[in-house]
Amino acid sequence: MLAEIITIGDEILIGQIVDTNSAWMAEQLNREGIRIKQISSVSDNREHILAALAEAAMRTDIILITGGLGPTKDDITKKTLAEYFNVGMVLNLDALTNVENIFKKYNRPLLEVNRKQAEVPENCEIIVNNNGTAPGMWFNEKGKIYVSMPGVPFEMKYMIEEAVIPKLRKALKLPVIIHKTILTVGEGESFLAEKIADIEDSLPANIKLAYLPKMGQVRLRLSGDGDNEAELQRKIEEFAVKIIDRVGINVVAEEDIPLEKVVLNYMAHRGLTLTAAESCTGGYISHLITQHAGSSQVFLGGAVSYAYELKESILGVKNETLWQHGAVSEETVKEMAEGALLNFKSDYAMAVTGIAGPGGGTEDKPVGTVWIAAANANKTVAKKFTFGNKRLQNIERSAVAAFFMLITLLREDGM
Amino acid sequence: MLAEIITIGDEILIGQIVDTNSAWMAEQLNREGIRIKQISSVSDNREHILAALAEAAMRTDIILITGGLGPTKDDITKKTLAEYFNVGMVLNLDALTNVENIFKKYNRPLLEVNRKQAEVPENCEIIVNNNGTAPGMWFNEKGKIYVSMPGVPFEMKYMIEEAVIPKLRKALKLPVIIHKTILTVGEGESFLAEKIADIEDSLPANIKLAYLPKMGQVRLRLSGDGDNEAELQRKIEEFAVKIIDRVGINVVAEEDIPLEKVVLNYMAHRGLTLTAAESCTGGYISHLITQHAGSSQVFLGGAVSYAYELKESILGVKNETLWQHGAVSEETVKEMAEGALLNFKSDYAMAVTGIAGPGGGTEDKPVGTVWIAAANANKTVAKKFTFGNKRLQNIERSAVAAFFMLITLLREDGM
Repeated sequence: MLAEIITIGDEILIGQIVDTNSAWMAEQLNREGIRIKQISSVSDNREHILAALAEAAMRTDIILITGGLGPTKDDITKKTLAEYFNVGMVLNLDALTNVENIFKKYNRPLLEVNRKQAEVPENCEIIVNNNGTAPGMWFNEKGKIYVSMPGVPFEMKYMIEEAVIPKLRKALKLPVIIHKTILTVGEGESFLAEKIADIEDSLPANIKLAYLPKMGQVRLRLSGDGDNEAELQRKIEEFAVKIIDRVGINVVAEEDIPLEKVVLNYMAHRGLTLTAAESCTGGYISHLITQHAGSSQVFLGGAVSYAYELKESILGVKNETLWQHGAVSEETVKEMAEGALLNFKSDYAMAVTGIAGPGGGTEDKPVGTVWIAAANANKTVAKKFTFGNKRLQNIERSAVAAFFMLITLLREDGM
Repeated sequence: MLAEIITIGDEILIGQIVDTNSAWMAEQLNREGIRIKQISSVSDNREHILAALAEAAMRTDIILITGGLGPTKDDITKKTLAEYFNVGMVLNLDALTNVENIFKKYNRPLLEVNRKQAEVPENCEIIVNNNGTAPGMWFNEKGKIYVSMPGVPFEMKYMIEEAVIPKLRKALKLPVIIHKTILTVGEGESFLAEKIADIEDSLPANIKLAYLPKMGQVRLRLSGDGDNEAELQRKIEEFAVKIIDRVGINVVAEEDIPLEKVVLNYMAHRGLTLTAAESCTGGYISHLITQHAGSSQVFLGGAVSYAYELKESILGVKNETLWQHGAVSEETVKEMAEGALLNFKSDYAMAVTGIAGPGGGTEDKPVGTVWIAAANANKTVAKKFTFGNKRLQNIERSAVAAFFMLITLLREDGM
């Protein structure tokens, strides 16, 4: 079964916002065995929206539309859908009640533009928006399903999970698609490809391997389709095991999860605690960890020690270490990790200090020089990395390398 | 002048990666007066790529393509472009030298798959990739410009900035497009729309207003096109001033910059320093700040005090305060801010403590309850917020509210 995603809004086309909705929707639909044929972003323009709807309906059977449902004048999706289906608009009482309740809850006056949000094309079934004022709309016309949703991510996500997926499951009989992802860290795409070339060549026609590189990580994704779910699952597992054996220590997870979640899951399971001492990553490692629910079980906290003084006062790095070796050095990063361990009383600690750039480099320590450490009560390991000259990349790469170093230390302890 | 962006790769269509490239490219092209008509994401599939190229060429004159240039077997963009243009492949010596140099630099053996990266369709001009092995390709066929670039963001970005934009400027005579963005915090889209409805109605036909809401912020963007740049600029400024006057204290910037940059720019200019004490935001505020080059001039660092013990040991929050009022309370957040100020020796401090969720809520303090404080030597202000039940949103909204509170305090001191 094929679907297409159409995102409507000039803000995507002028680059003011990144379209994160489509990736999320694609992932949800894939799990249900619905492949996304194309994602198209078009402007808040009547002709363009009409053309995109017609093109999508020629390619696919399910058309998911986001955006252009706000109360303001630049939002024209609703009336354009009515024109596309050649129907009039009606006031939907469920949608109106929802709008009224939201304004009552926040104790705000209900404006005429908000009342208008309850008007919808007369051929749609509405999807109540529990998180906002614009209703979702479900159309079933000439054998095609169209769903129009708000562009605000959490409003759309709620609708997809609570209404759209259950309705699609009911309306369609879906084929089996299985993905298996292997997360690797520390080796490049072409090195991995060469290493597993013969395994890749031996894949049957219904199973494909994709390489998904991202900042020091490569995800290897096996995707298969078929009628017999158990048989397909078995085949994919068989090839996954071959790849995992071949790639070896660079495999850190046999499922599609973020790198930091590999660490969190393991440490939570073992009742271990973690802290972080961050200089050049500036809170990014802590943020990666704490974005996950339940992270407080493992992560006690940490220091963002940007200034010299904070490295001393919070982490207990010795003044003479900073003075003799500099903030970006093996000695300093080790004292940072050990200081976090001691002062924050955790089982493990990570520390990062480096020159993220674009300024601050010297001949000895150019931009991209980063020292990373991981420590537990028995051992502190530290390693120097030389990344590039882009600030955000250096921050992201440092975080990846720090998690990999922590995993290596956890493995020595039996992970 | 119209352009279209085609991103190639199954990884976008199955939702494994978010297409951040397109927004970035769109922004760069818009600045040059090139409007993006459509962004299309298609699969690593020959027929689909051929169809997308043909469709884009019917709609626009410039077609920018990213992705599918890796060394592995799932990457077919290059040979499909050769087929589209009906030409053969040739080994490009500049591209080969680049590949060889990269492998020499990192002291890696050059594999046959990497050598193949220097083969390109014979009708293209290559764009040397200074950050990777896959060359960019520039085609000029039947009055249309096609540019194919790697999907790896920093490789693509470098090519756009260093080669594609300069070449487009040379090849085309471009019209004037001017954007003016006003950043507002603390009021919703429809409230703002109602407040400035008459100003919006009085806009001339060539100037449009868009509302771009994002987590507690709304960007108001005026966009105009015309032949007379000075006249257009003057008109847009005239309406911008009217809107800014009307919206009042919720306007925090008159340019399109991130909220934290408003704070950083002002504080750097005045030589002021800042620290942060983060509980439920878990390092996110520090990360927002430190992602910007030069932030170390203002930001000394901070604490991610997830555990009770760290609130006491790093920030000096009193045990009895935590015990009497709880970690999420006015008393605690004030002691956190004042502790950061005192222990980290900064001019200003921000503090956040709350229940990000999804767990951890109580009847008194449900998920989404967040206390935020801002402090300087003379004054500490604190305020309670009640956000929703989504963890990441609560983190992001808390950060926005914290920066707005800091701006309010800075304004009392003359900002």
